[in-house]
Amino acid sequence: MNPDEPLPGEQALAWLDAHAEERRRAGLARQLRPRAPGSDLLDLAGNDYLGLARDKRVGGAAAAATLRWGTGATGSRLVTGSTELHSELEFELARFCGVQAALVFSSGFTANLAAVTALSGRNCSIVTDANIHASLIDGCRLSRAELAVVAHKDVAAATRALASKRTERAVYVTDSVFSVDGDIAPLPELHAACRAHGAALIVDDAHGLGVLGEGGRGAVHAAGLAGEPDVVTTVTLSKSLGAQGGAVLGPRKVIRHLVDNARSFIFDTGLAPGSAAAALSALTVLKEEPERAEKVLTNAMTLSVRLREAGLQVGEPASAVVSVRAPSAEAALTWSEDCRSAGVWVGCFRPPSVPDSVSRLRLTARADLSEADIDRAVEVITKTAP
Amino acid sequence: MNPDEPLPGEQALAWLDAHAEERRRAGLARQLRPRAPGSDLLDLAGNDYLGLARDKRVGGAAAAATLRWGTGATGSRLVTGSTELHSELEFELARFCGVQAALVFSSGFTANLAAVTALSGRNCSIVTDANIHASLIDGCRLSRAELAVVAHKDVAAATRALASKRTERAVYVTDSVFSVDGDIAPLPELHAACRAHGAALIVDDAHGLGVLGEGGRGAVHAAGLAGEPDVVTTVTLSKSLGAQGGAVLGPRKVIRHLVDNARSFIFDTGLAPGSAAAALSALTVLKEEPERAEKVLTNAMTLSVRLREAGLQVGEPASAVVSVRAPSAEAALTWSEDCRSAGVWVGCFRPPSVPDSVSRLRLTARADLSEADIDRAVEVITKTAP
Repeated sequence: MNPDEPLPGEQALAWLDAHAEERRRAGLARQLRPRAPGSDLLDLAGNDYLGLARDKRVGGAAAAATLRWGTGATGSRLVTGSTELHSELEFELARFCGVQAALVFSSGFTANLAAVTALSGRNCSIVTDANIHASLIDGCRLSRAELAVVAHKDVAAATRALASKRTERAVYVTDSVFSVDGDIAPLPELHAACRAHGAALIVDDAHGLGVLGEGGRGAVHAAGLAGEPDVVTTVTLSKSLGAQGGAVLGPRKVIRHLVDNARSFIFDTGLAPGSAAAALSALTVLKEEPERAEKVLTNAMTLSVRLREAGLQVGEPASAVVSVRAPSAEAALTWSEDCRSAGVWVGCFRPPSVPDSVSRLRLTARADLSEADIDRAVEVITKTAP
Repeated sequence: MNPDEPLPGEQALAWLDAHAEERRRAGLARQLRPRAPGSDLLDLAGNDYLGLARDKRVGGAAAAATLRWGTGATGSRLVTGSTELHSELEFELARFCGVQAALVFSSGFTANLAAVTALSGRNCSIVTDANIHASLIDGCRLSRAELAVVAHKDVAAATRALASKRTERAVYVTDSVFSVDGDIAPLPELHAACRAHGAALIVDDAHGLGVLGEGGRGAVHAAGLAGEPDVVTTVTLSKSLGAQGGAVLGPRKVIRHLVDNARSFIFDTGLAPGSAAAALSALTVLKEEPERAEKVLTNAMTLSVRLREAGLQVGEPASAVVSVRAPSAEAALTWSEDCRSAGVWVGCFRPPSVPDSVSRLRLTARADLSEADIDRAVEVITKTAP
C-alpha cells in the first residue's frame, strides 16, 4: 500500500484536517483547559455571579438530593423524569420572578430552543436583536418562521420590523443582558413596541437573574414586565444559581404549551435531581441574602472604576460583566494569558465571537470577591496590559 | 371595559388557547406527573437500564464530587466549565467504547445537535432513517445540508440515496436502537454503504450503551465499528449510566472539530461536576459488573416471553425495550393508567409519537428487576389488558 494513500474509511472525514489547519493558521483553534480542584486562580471568567456554586448550603442540598432521589432523572420529564423537586423548583422560580409558571430544562440552551420554536412557527415572524445568544439564534433557525434581524438595541428598527410583518403573529427575541459587554436591552421600549403590534416578547434573562432587579429578580422584573401576559422569560440555573439547567418563565398557558409542544423539553432527559436541588437551595439563599445581588453590581462598578483610573478602556458596567478593550486580537490573547500566569483568570473575546470586531478582556464580578481579590485583579490586569 | 374584550397584551399569545383546546379534544394534552421520593411503583417506564441511578456507589461519588467541585461547572466548557472530572470521564468513555476520543455535553440532545450540525453543513448531504430521534432531526434541520429521509432500516434505499448525492460530502444518520420498539439498525450494512460512497456514519447509541455489545460497550462496538475512522457515535449519560448528559465518541479529529465548531458545545454551560462523577462511577461499576448488561437483555426476554405466553402481542426484544401492542390509542392509554393504578409504571406510546400509527405499551427492562418484580409486572399487565 502506498503510505501516502489514505486508509480505507479515512476519506469521509478527511476534510476536517484542512478545516483544522485553517483555524490553526487563523489563530482560532480552541483548547479545553480542565481546571484542578482547589485551584487558587482568582476566577473573573465564570458566571457564578453570587458565589453560590461553592456555597456549603447549596452543595449540601445537592448532595442530599442526589442520595435521596438518585443521580439522574431516569427519563424525560413527561415519563419518569419529573420529581417533586422539579415541581417545587418551578413553583419557587415562578413566585420569585413574579410570573404565573415556570418550566425547568436540562440547560439554558434547550430552554431557549424551546421558547423560540414553540412560540413561533411557520405563520409567525421573529424579529431579533443582532447580538442575541447562539441558542436563541439556533431556535430561530429551527422555527421555520420569517426572520428579521435588527441592529443592536435599535427600538425604532424593531418597531418598523414588527409593524411590517406579513404574518399573522410575531415575536421579538432579545437577551436582557448581552453576554459580551454586559449591556442591557431597552426592555420597556421593546415591550411597548411589541404591545403596539400584538407581538410577544421573549427575553433571555440568563445574565440578569440574581444580579438585576429587586433582590436579584432579574432584568424583566426590573423593567416592570414580570407577569405581563405577552412576555416570556428564559433563565439559566447555571449562572447566579450555581447549578445546571435552564427554565422558561411566563403565563401558565405558555408553560402548558411548552409541555405539549417543545421538542427540546419532550425529548430530553429531565434535569438531574441534584442540580434541581442546588438551584432551589441557591434561590433560598438569594431570598435570604438579597444583598448578594447588589454586591455583584458594586464589585463590577469598583473593578471598572479602578481599571479606568489605571488608564484602561473600560465600559461602565450595567451588570456583572466588565468589558476591557484590547488593541488587537493577538494582544487580547497575550494579555489574558499573562493574567492567568499571574493568577487571575479572565475571559478573552476575539473575532468572530464579538459582534463589533473589537477584542476585549471580559471580567465577571462575583458577590463574594473580597477587597483583596479586587486589589489583586486590578494589579495583575494593569501590570500585564499591552 | 367590555368583559369579553381581551386585556391589553392578551392578544399576542391568545392563539395558544385555541391550540390547547385542539390538543385537548384530540386527547393529546400532556401532563407532568411528578413522582414522590420512595414511590413504590414498579418502574418499567424509565431508562435507568442498569439500575445505577439509585446505586449507592454512584450516588456517593456524585455527592462527594458536588461537595468537592461545586454544584455547577460555572461556565462554558471552553471558559471555566471544564474540570479534571470532565476530562477523566471523556478518557474513560473513549477507552471503554474503543474509540480515540470523547466529548461530554450537558445532554444527549445537545450532543446530537452538535454531531449532526458540525459534521455536515451546506456542502453536505444528510441521509437519515425515517425513525431517528427528535434531537437528530433537529440537528438535520439546523444543518443547512441537503436532506434525504429513507424508509426505516432500508439499506438499499440508504445506499441509493448516498450514491445519488449531489454534494461533495455525505453522512448517514441513524439511531442504533430505535426508542419506540427497541429494534436495531443494520449497522454493518449501513457502514458498508457509507464506506462505498465516502460517507461518514453518525450513530446515536443512547439505548445501546450499557446494554448491547461486550460488557455493555454498545451497539456500535457490537457491530465491530468502534474505532473506525468514518464512524461517530453519540451516547447519553442519563440512561444506562444513571446520570445526566451526553457525549460524542469518535476519531480524535472529530472531537477537536466539535470543540472548535459545535455551537451546542461552545455556547452551553458545562455538565455539573456531580453528574460527570455519577457517569464516571457508573462506568466503573459497569466495567466491574459486566453481567449487568446481559441481565437487562435476559430480563427483557423473560418479560416478552411471559407476556406473549399470556396472549399479548409482544415483539422479540433486541434491547431493553419490550413493545406490547394495544388495539387503539384510547385502549393503550387506559391500559397504561390501569397498570399504574395497580402499581406498575409502563410507558404508553400513541400517535403522533409512533412512526407506524400503532399504539403500544412500552416497557423497559432493568438489570435490577427481581423475579418477583417480573411476576408482578406480568400479572398486572395481563390482568389489565383490554
